[in-house]
Amino acid sequence: MRTAPPIDRLVAALKRLPGIGDKSATRLAFFLLGAPDAVGQELGEAIARLKRDIVLCAECFDLTDASPCAVCRDPKRDPSLLCVVEEPADLAAIDATGKFRGHFFVLGGALSPIDGVGPEELRIRELEERVRHGIVKEVILATNPNAEGDATAHYVSERLRPQDVTLTRIAYGMPLGGDLEYADHVTIGLSLDHRRAID
Amino acid sequence: MRTAPPIDRLVAALKRLPGIGDKSATRLAFFLLGAPDAVGQELGEAIARLKRDIVLCAECFDLTDASPCAVCRDPKRDPSLLCVVEEPADLAAIDATGKFRGHFFVLGGALSPIDGVGPEELRIRELEERVRHGIVKEVILATNPNAEGDATAHYVSERLRPQDVTLTRIAYGMPLGGDLEYADHVTIGLSLDHRRAID
Repeated sequence: MRTAPPIDRLVAALKRLPGIGDKSATRLAFFLLGAPDAVGQELGEAIARLKRDIVLCAECFDLTDASPCAVCRDPKRDPSLLCVVEEPADLAAIDATGKFRGHFFVLGGALSPIDGVGPEELRIRELEERVRHGIVKEVILATNPNAEGDATAHYVSERLRPQDVTLTRIAYGMPLGGDLEYADHVTIGLSLDHRRAID
Repeated sequence: MRTAPPIDRLVAALKRLPGIGDKSATRLAFFLLGAPDAVGQELGEAIARLKRDIVLCAECFDLTDASPCAVCRDPKRDPSLLCVVEEPADLAAIDATGKFRGHFFVLGGALSPIDGVGPEELRIRELEERVRHGIVKEVILATNPNAEGDATAHYVSERLRPQDVTLTRIAYGMPLGGDLEYADHVTIGLSLDHRRAID
């Protein structure tokens, strides 16, 4: 779409974001043109400051503005429960549920030989060290429910097995609000395999 | 979702954009965190420069970086054909089709008494002036196909009627690739009313 160069430039920059195509980018650019200056200013500043103000938490390796992060510092959280995730975004998603009151550990990805990600690329040694302190009683492997996440969960559990710690994996099953008619066969099969007794 | 403040700030700024909710904003923020610095820098700069570098074209009132704009300056375009749109985004959408080789005129909105937009808030006087020069032979009213756009097209056509100019309105009908089964009744009715002879 041909527009003025400053708009084209913004549209091009927006299109590099995931899930934003030509139409969405154009719509966002015209929105910003019409919006109060503060909207664009705050967005521009937030983007500029993002990487400058972010560090890794030395304990859980989450992205934070102060290490250790707020979750690791929180005395109300149960340090015996450690939830292992691939990425900071996964941590944020689990924490947003409000269902988990333990600690986290960010591996930094999942095993993926095709992408050149082996055990050395993940923080598995740091995880072993963390568990070795003896405070953690259960490690919940909350890597993604896909082939890489499963392989990673399996590998991490093998590495941690020598230590005196319970290893668990998040449940597979039907998503809430899902429709059996449209669910894939593997998910339906897993939701049958993993069925639970009704209390 | 609780994350580090610099991420929260960016998520909050992104959520003010249309069509971007909590989940999309979080996904975009984590993408920017993981992306090369240039991606965020270019986006931030494009946003910052957007309003500074944009002016209104004195002829068509489109947003441009130089007035008159590239479309108005283009000698290959037909000045006898004037397409009247509500907003610059509409102009860009029509121009992107490559089907229209005339000139444009941006009204600056549509009549909407409920939002306090009357004829004085639109550039109707400027449009009358433009048509009065006598170069324009046909005015295509390409305001949006909704109640406000229809009312605006009707009002503008009444205002221009004293002048020696042909007035047309963009066609209503079924969108290409649409499905009659799922189309609304009014559109189906209009696509019947506006049926054309097959060549």
